[in-house]
Amino acid sequence: MSTTQLPVVLLDPHPRPLDLIFDRPTKERLSALGEVIWHDGPPAPAEHIDRHLPRTTILIGQTALPTERLNLAPQLRAVFNVESNFLPNIDYGECHRRGIHVLSTAPVFAQPVAEMALGLALAAARRMPEADAAIRAGRESLYGERDNYDSILLHGRPLALVGCGNVGRALVPLLRPFGGEIFVHDPWIHPAVLREMGLTPASLEECFARGAVVFLLAATTTENAGRIGRDHFARMRPGGIVVLVSRAGIVNFDDLLDAAAAGRIRVAIDVWPEEPIPPDHRARRTPNTILQAHRAGNIPEIWPRMGQMVVDDIEQILRGLPPMRCQRAQLETVMRLRSKPVG
Amino acid sequence: MSTTQLPVVLLDPHPRPLDLIFDRPTKERLSALGEVIWHDGPPAPAEHIDRHLPRTTILIGQTALPTERLNLAPQLRAVFNVESNFLPNIDYGECHRRGIHVLSTAPVFAQPVAEMALGLALAAARRMPEADAAIRAGRESLYGERDNYDSILLHGRPLALVGCGNVGRALVPLLRPFGGEIFVHDPWIHPAVLREMGLTPASLEECFARGAVVFLLAATTTENAGRIGRDHFARMRPGGIVVLVSRAGIVNFDDLLDAAAAGRIRVAIDVWPEEPIPPDHRARRTPNTILQAHRAGNIPEIWPRMGQMVVDDIEQILRGLPPMRCQRAQLETVMRLRSKPVG
Amino acid sequence: MSTTQLPVVLLDPHPRPLDLIFDRPTKERLSALGEVIWHDGPPAPAEHIDRHLPRTTILIGQTALPTERLNLAPQLRAVFNVESNFLPNIDYGECHRRGIHVLSTAPVFAQPVAEMALGLALAAARRMPEADAAIRAGRESLYGERDNYDSILLHGRPLALVGCGNVGRALVPLLRPFGGEIFVHDPWIHPAVLREMGLTPASLEECFARGAVVFLLAATTTENAGRIGRDHFARMRPGGIVVLVSRAGIVNFDDLLDAAAAGRIRVAIDVWPEEPIPPDHRARRTPNTILQAHRAGNIPEIWPRMGQMVVDDIEQILRGLPPMRCQRAQLETVMRLRSKPVG
Amino acid sequence: MSTTQLPVVLLDPHPRPLDLIFDRPTKERLSALGEVIWHDGPPAPAEHIDRHLPRTTILIGQTALPTERLNLAPQLRAVFNVESNFLPNIDYGECHRRGIHVLSTAPVFAQPVAEMALGLALAAARRMPEADAAIRAGRESLYGERDNYDSILLHGRPLALVGCGNVGRALVPLLRPFGGEIFVHDPWIHPAVLREMGLTPASLEECFARGAVVFLLAATTTENAGRIGRDHFARMRPGGIVVLVSRAGIVNFDDLLDAAAAGRIRVAIDVWPEEPIPPDHRARRTPNTILQAHRAGNIPEIWPRMGQMVVDDIEQILRGLPPMRCQRAQLETVMRLRSKPVG
Repeated sequence: MSTTQLPVVLLDPHPRPLDLIFDRPTKERLSALGEVIWHDGPPAPAEHIDRHLPRTTILIGQTALPTERLNLAPQLRAVFNVESNFLPNIDYGECHRRGIHVLSTAPVFAQPVAEMALGLALAAARRMPEADAAIRAGRESLYGERDNYDSILLHGRPLALVGCGNVGRALVPLLRPFGGEIFVHDPWIHPAVLREMGLTPASLEECFARGAVVFLLAATTTENAGRIGRDHFARMRPGGIVVLVSRAGIVNFDDLLDAAAAGRIRVAIDVWPEEPIPPDHRARRTPNTILQAHRAGNIPEIWPRMGQMVVDDIEQILRGLPPMRCQRAQLETVMRLRSKPVG
Repeated sequence: MSTTQLPVVLLDPHPRPLDLIFDRPTKERLSALGEVIWHDGPPAPAEHIDRHLPRTTILIGQTALPTERLNLAPQLRAVFNVESNFLPNIDYGECHRRGIHVLSTAPVFAQPVAEMALGLALAAARRMPEADAAIRAGRESLYGERDNYDSILLHGRPLALVGCGNVGRALVPLLRPFGGEIFVHDPWIHPAVLREMGLTPASLEECFARGAVVFLLAATTTENAGRIGRDHFARMRPGGIVVLVSRAGIVNFDDLLDAAAAGRIRVAIDVWPEEPIPPDHRARRTPNTILQAHRAGNIPEIWPRMGQMVVDDIEQILRGLPPMRCQRAQLETVMRLRSKPVG
Repeated sequence: MSTTQLPVVLLDPHPRPLDLIFDRPTKERLSALGEVIWHDGPPAPAEHIDRHLPRTTILIGQTALPTERLNLAPQLRAVFNVESNFLPNIDYGECHRRGIHVLSTAPVFAQPVAEMALGLALAAARRMPEADAAIRAGRESLYGERDNYDSILLHGRPLALVGCGNVGRALVPLLRPFGGEIFVHDPWIHPAVLREMGLTPASLEECFARGAVVFLLAATTTENAGRIGRDHFARMRPGGIVVLVSRAGIVNFDDLLDAAAAGRIRVAIDVWPEEPIPPDHRARRTPNTILQAHRAGNIPEIWPRMGQMVVDDIEQILRGLPPMRCQRAQLETVMRLRSKPVG
Repeated sequence: MSTTQLPVVLLDPHPRPLDLIFDRPTKERLSALGEVIWHDGPPAPAEHIDRHLPRTTILIGQTALPTERLNLAPQLRAVFNVESNFLPNIDYGECHRRGIHVLSTAPVFAQPVAEMALGLALAAARRMPEADAAIRAGRESLYGERDNYDSILLHGRPLALVGCGNVGRALVPLLRPFGGEIFVHDPWIHPAVLREMGLTPASLEECFARGAVVFLLAATTTENAGRIGRDHFARMRPGGIVVLVSRAGIVNFDDLLDAAAAGRIRVAIDVWPEEPIPPDHRARRTPNTILQAHRAGNIPEIWPRMGQMVVDDIEQILRGLPPMRCQRAQLETVMRLRSKPVG
């Protein structure tokens, strides 16, 4: 681990602007760790990357790393994806063999998405946006006389999570004080692990049949794309709530809107099958919905945290320790992910 | 405490419809406890009350109980106010002297109001209703590019509660997992009690200066009416959030709307100085607000709980035990309350 | 509430030494509240009390207060029992009628007793004292080969509380992270209240049948004296644990020791039917026990807290607010208590 | 991942008896997963291992796996160490390159050790074993008059953890309800990670200076062996408590006993520099100690859990998913561990 030459950190952070994710103190911490080859703006040109890779210890960016490029990088010990979706542009197997950590700053989005997911659930459970619009339109009903008919408490009610990765783990503590049983469907997590976390492992069907609110938190994978549809929504009790925050690819979106339009369920949506949302998208006119334009995760205060967690983990790695702040690409699952990068 | 004659329960629940607050099992439980003199609809006529009071053990209603009437009621052991605001129509001192519990079902509203308060705080922190309306109007910005500029996490932020009664005590557990310090101003609670609850006692001014969100949860009293105004809002950091859920009487409402209109703070409002809300009320056009028409507490599932908690406490009392589910009128504070009854 | 004359505080703290329960800052706070008539050492003579009562606002002590004496005390607004057991030497009904709060510093003992109760449960579950003694005697077994045969985890196991007053409420949070169901038997608390606290109401029999550890936390009352005996212990699963911390009067002590001696259960005892413990008490030789000589509550750091909570509540009362730190005598239950004062 | 031939599971569980760690249902689950080559008793002979390795998918045991043997095992995907200490008998680097998970059942010990650690802390804080022995010897003092002089509450007090691995993470939730700040020294964990867990990163010196109880929970490593000694104990406040549960190698044991003998601190010890404990070890006569003979982890109910977690993770691996129940050998740290195997 010891080396007399300074570690070299190569930056290629596009689409993240450098100053967005690295505030001044974090830049200074980074500079203190080694020789930093700064880069900002568009993707670094291939020749820039290829020229510096032979000396690079740490690469910060979502740069393509096929086998040939890894062959150019004998010093490379870690790659930090700051866009935060693992893409199929890296030879993950070869990185693993070489002991190169491939890491993502995705965990930074967990808390903002979890907070919005809870906010959407509460807003849907009480029809807050409709009631707000009613006052502005001068047609409100006092004391909820007309609009509280299907308002529900979350307290004591069973809740369900489809997917229990970063967002799920941030959401669970926020849901605990409501006191209801928490059902989880996540085919990548052993039921014994969920039980140890105080959660109830469940099939996808059970999640919809039991959850007063079903939070859809799964990444799109080769296995789950489009899998949730009409039959699932039909299992929900009337007045049930679906909160879709990550990713739209796992649901049949038309079935979801049909169920909301029919008034069977209430739906909150932050992620969309096509982004930007087409101007004439039917969701814009669908009742019993709360709509957000993929804005749950991307809030200002988390940007500098991306740089901080990257530098925290570089510190770990340069001290000969495993990274602990960013998410590691797992050899078994990374190639099954199908989430599209954010534009 | 023992008596050979059956206890008599006299009902006068107006404005609560009998069937709303007593579901069938609760009615059966009540009937099993003694002789019930049922009444529904408009307030029971004075002569009805006066005729039955001499035999009455338990009175369920917000019936006027001046000293002369108490003199008619030698068996009376408890009065349950199911409207849920203690009114100045009872001789509380004489009730106390006679060992008559005066109780309110107000605690039943704590959880729905607390859940809405948290939902409003999250909705304001992320401008959810505005973003929803933007999609419906076809003018949304993707990834929060234009509308996430002042979105904030609650996680880790100091929060403040003005008033820590029923609603505050229901809200605190929901706020704990966000992990920030919780400041509380409540002049009726000794600071040592707040500290024991893991809360930070604070002046009214500190609450506004420190809280990223200030929850206004206090009942109107002889001391606090109209006390919160311009100077308090001016102490808040830009982007601060005020959530007003109980009662409007404690704020200068124009100052509150001025601060929202000026864009300094975001404001969520459920309670109003005048209800119904006047058609031309300026709040209907004030930006940076989320508006609800006094609908936080009054949701269907809590209605039957009012009856249940009344019967639970009647069971306690008839077993010679203190009531534990309803709120007791405290001799020291009950006459200082100035909340108006709900119409 | 306003008065031009200073409130008078009369002290009669025996058997608590004055300097033990009032540290210097607390004395200063007390002195700032009014005119304090200090007294220390033996009980104040009757004539001293009778002379000062007419001017007394606050009495600190377990002084006898029959009706005649209350008649001497028109200004009296609160009595603080610092010995901490409500005794039958007060006319509680008359105090209630006069709006005189009768208060006890008993809550100060809740945390030390709860911590010892948990410590005793863990020590019994792992036979810690026996294993410690074995090493000192040179007959230990490594890796628990001989003495871990009945060691159990508390994690995930059902636990039971008999009595859920001050100590129970302090113990419950310490037991929560072990994650098991918590059964509670307390005939003075409505089952609905226990359920709201996340506890499972249970009969006395169920507590013994279900709890891996049964914590006996009840005060002795007119109803429960000697009620727990052989039949209850026989319901426990082999290896079950009984922790007796308050009060010995509720169990048949011989039955308890028989069950321990027979090896069916393990027993931890802090309170005794006769104190001091008779020199030849059979418990001294009973195996499967952990023995403490009524020392769970009385630890140095809580002594000054007694004075602090008294002064906190005097502050509340003098501000026209209800006391909140000390325990109030409940008219319904206070005369049923049969705990003997600590000598 | 799919394969037509059944996976082969090779067992070499010594020193764990097969039936101890695999109960019947777990054996059945294991058998259902593939072809199991059972083995029990002494270590499997080298030729047995060598004969089966070429077909082996999963190896359960602490079998030596130098490079040459790995070369014999092209199908090998995971090795489960059920003794639970990673030993230097495996080429961890080569395993990593080949994508072979090296796993340990060590997490199974976390809960029993954490519960004993808390039990020892409470027992030391209240001198429970001494008080128990005093009653048996007929020299107790009632109400703690002589033996509560240095009894302390854990509630509200700062606590410190040296090492925050499996045991630390199981202990933290048990300590939370005591409400004090929790200081942690763990040089392998980035301070930002500790902060996210709600813990306070601290130097070793700060842990001793601040913690009312210092829990020593670290494995012995190349860096920390014998590092904690006289200077650290001298920093503790009088009456401080040290709980040593894993591993003795990190402290200067004589310094520890000197500090206890001098009465400055109280010490609870479960692990020893030499085991069995030498008959004339001075600790046997040292006051202010609670002694256990390395029995914190090894309790009956966790044995079958070892088998269960192994089979859980085999299920994950055979489904093409990462193991989640056992602890993974981290390439960076595994070769720095110096804990000796349990005999």
